[in-house]
Amino acid sequence: MAPLVTLLSDFGPAGPYVGAVRGVLLARCPGVVLADITHAVPPQDVLAGAFVLRAAFPWFPPGTVHLAVVDPGVGGPRRALVARTAEHAFVGPDNGLFTLLYDAGVHDVYEIDPLRLGLDPAHVSPTFHGRDLFAPAAAALARGTDPAAFATPVTDPVRLPLAAPARDGAWLRTPVLHVDTFGNVVTAVTPGVLERLVPGSRGAAALDLPGPWSGTVLAHTFAAGPHGRPFLLWGSSGYLEVVADRQRADRLLGVQAGEALTFAVRG
Amino acid sequence: MAPLVTLLSDFGPAGPYVGAVRGVLLARCPGVVLADITHAVPPQDVLAGAFVLRAAFPWFPPGTVHLAVVDPGVGGPRRALVARTAEHAFVGPDNGLFTLLYDAGVHDVYEIDPLRLGLDPAHVSPTFHGRDLFAPAAAALARGTDPAAFATPVTDPVRLPLAAPARDGAWLRTPVLHVDTFGNVVTAVTPGVLERLVPGSRGAAALDLPGPWSGTVLAHTFAAGPHGRPFLLWGSSGYLEVVADRQRADRLLGVQAGEALTFAVRG
Amino acid sequence: MAPLVTLLSDFGPAGPYVGAVRGVLLARCPGVVLADITHAVPPQDVLAGAFVLRAAFPWFPPGTVHLAVVDPGVGGPRRALVARTAEHAFVGPDNGLFTLLYDAGVHDVYEIDPLRLGLDPAHVSPTFHGRDLFAPAAAALARGTDPAAFATPVTDPVRLPLAAPARDGAWLRTPVLHVDTFGNVVTAVTPGVLERLVPGSRGAAALDLPGPWSGTVLAHTFAAGPHGRPFLLWGSSGYLEVVADRQRADRLLGVQAGEALTFAVRG
Repeated sequence: MAPLVTLLSDFGPAGPYVGAVRGVLLARCPGVVLADITHAVPPQDVLAGAFVLRAAFPWFPPGTVHLAVVDPGVGGPRRALVARTAEHAFVGPDNGLFTLLYDAGVHDVYEIDPLRLGLDPAHVSPTFHGRDLFAPAAAALARGTDPAAFATPVTDPVRLPLAAPARDGAWLRTPVLHVDTFGNVVTAVTPGVLERLVPGSRGAAALDLPGPWSGTVLAHTFAAGPHGRPFLLWGSSGYLEVVADRQRADRLLGVQAGEALTFAVRG
Repeated sequence: MAPLVTLLSDFGPAGPYVGAVRGVLLARCPGVVLADITHAVPPQDVLAGAFVLRAAFPWFPPGTVHLAVVDPGVGGPRRALVARTAEHAFVGPDNGLFTLLYDAGVHDVYEIDPLRLGLDPAHVSPTFHGRDLFAPAAAALARGTDPAAFATPVTDPVRLPLAAPARDGAWLRTPVLHVDTFGNVVTAVTPGVLERLVPGSRGAAALDLPGPWSGTVLAHTFAAGPHGRPFLLWGSSGYLEVVADRQRADRLLGVQAGEALTFAVRG
Repeated sequence: MAPLVTLLSDFGPAGPYVGAVRGVLLARCPGVVLADITHAVPPQDVLAGAFVLRAAFPWFPPGTVHLAVVDPGVGGPRRALVARTAEHAFVGPDNGLFTLLYDAGVHDVYEIDPLRLGLDPAHVSPTFHGRDLFAPAAAALARGTDPAAFATPVTDPVRLPLAAPARDGAWLRTPVLHVDTFGNVVTAVTPGVLERLVPGSRGAAALDLPGPWSGTVLAHTFAAGPHGRPFLLWGSSGYLEVVADRQRADRLLGVQAGEALTFAVRG
């Protein structure tokens, strides 16, 4: 089967950047199949990129290489990484973009050595590692090269400072991982996390938004929820979401990605 | 030849949704070639999706499978469909998205049965059938599976309530199928429709916009039309369009997609 | 290896246009691999298209065909071209879109003859040559057809009226080729041009922005530059850029693509 490389970036739809990266991959790995995840990560928003990568990657087949570039520190001292789960490989900057992968099966992380990758430093633009460093590394992996051939194991990759969901008596506090295009608020609460923090709860009906939204219900679809009020829904990415029917739940709650959200645990 | 699947949706450029659908198709139909039609259908605008699908699909080669998801009713009672012309297959929700296909050669329509498709209902998100139901169905068709193996014939697919173009004496009334990015107003009038409604007319010179725009001319190109006034043009999708040179014809006419437009038939 | 065709246009993300072009390429050249450069060139902005094409194309492998359509004169008298470097072929309108290629190795330029390409003029929409003329020509090239089989050599392709960078004593004047999404101002000055105009300069430290920005420094990365002031940087596309850290340099300088920018040459 032809090797498969996905692309995720904050390059936006315009300009030559995405095209150049595609060209390098096709030139360095003839026959590679390219599939975009997105190039519309908000500029330099590492957390947004981390969420989208985490939500999309598991749907690709085993052997896929994921090239992810949201890289405000390009040209500075941040490392260039390869990470691997049993079935997937990831290439990108060491700035927290892989944070949500480290609990999703990553067992090896490596720092890329441009010289062992065969790159001439004079041809690596200090402002465009996506094209000149990460794409060659992704192409090498797609050709079947072992990361140990051009990268050195590291044990301390950067993680975004997201507090894990935690319980404090009658309260459960979670970071907001993502606010999607529609204003849906994606928490870090999975069914497994909820069972651990609220044993025997059998699902999100155990949680209530405090204050004016007390009495929060859980629905299976957007249309099944109440009008004019936020409600809970297990989102398609596997996380608990706070949503509202034809309204932006992020505005109702006054919350943004990266901030914390507190639920009351129902007695 | 490798199977080919096109994608059309209102998912927008950001977020994990398009990537996840691509991943499912590539995982379930190894070797499939993916080609986007668009993911920029305005959110939940079924008519806009219907027009773009209708205008783009005939240009793809025989055997193409078209996966189209504009699905405000996801998770509700609306059916999931497969439709087929002699050369193309379509997968998507039964909400009118295929309306303009039913006069374009569709001879079979089926309702998808998730169980016969081998899907576990517990793994079908009620908010993301694009990924969990439609993509697996499109992958099955792309692998060569007959729709009868996982879907049941239906005879009453939903159609959008668009009145067909009709003549009433000196007037010809047509729905507006689409307003494009430039404000060009795409009617439902084809050369065949016009010949039927205005026999011997030999083209759109038989039509006149009433009121302030009376005296409408027909041009072959944008630059050949008059300045500051709407004029007629046979658009590249095969429909009669009302356009204006470097102006938005939709604003000059005060008309939107889904509304009706009335022409005077020239004596 | 499968033939490769890139796509560049100002069609935008919505509507059926990009999809239809993809369909024609896949129908006329089975097995072709498609790779987007961009479809977000600002509408009818030929210079922007010319820059993005020039910056992206060299990264694709030898044998790539580049289909580029920014075509405000569609349907009028402008010619349809094929251009070739030793390794790449280009198809698009003769309106200056290829201006920056003519100094990048183009050795042959041809005018496409629709009849020799086997096209029926009745099926070439006067408003959509991207689909009906350029895509068939690109598909023919991708199948290995020699351009001489359907096109006639021309020696006078249209060039945009961009003055080449030039020196006048203590001043160096250059056109602005591009302003990117972030406001970075891309000049036409390459290392070779600079060495020719300022012999022995050994780089851009020889140049100074006049007026309030006198004292301009050269940096290797965005973060290494001064705050609140424009500075110089060799951009990833090989041109000298004027940039600013977390500010739009185009606004600081009051300059747009296509205009001229003047540097003082340091004694």
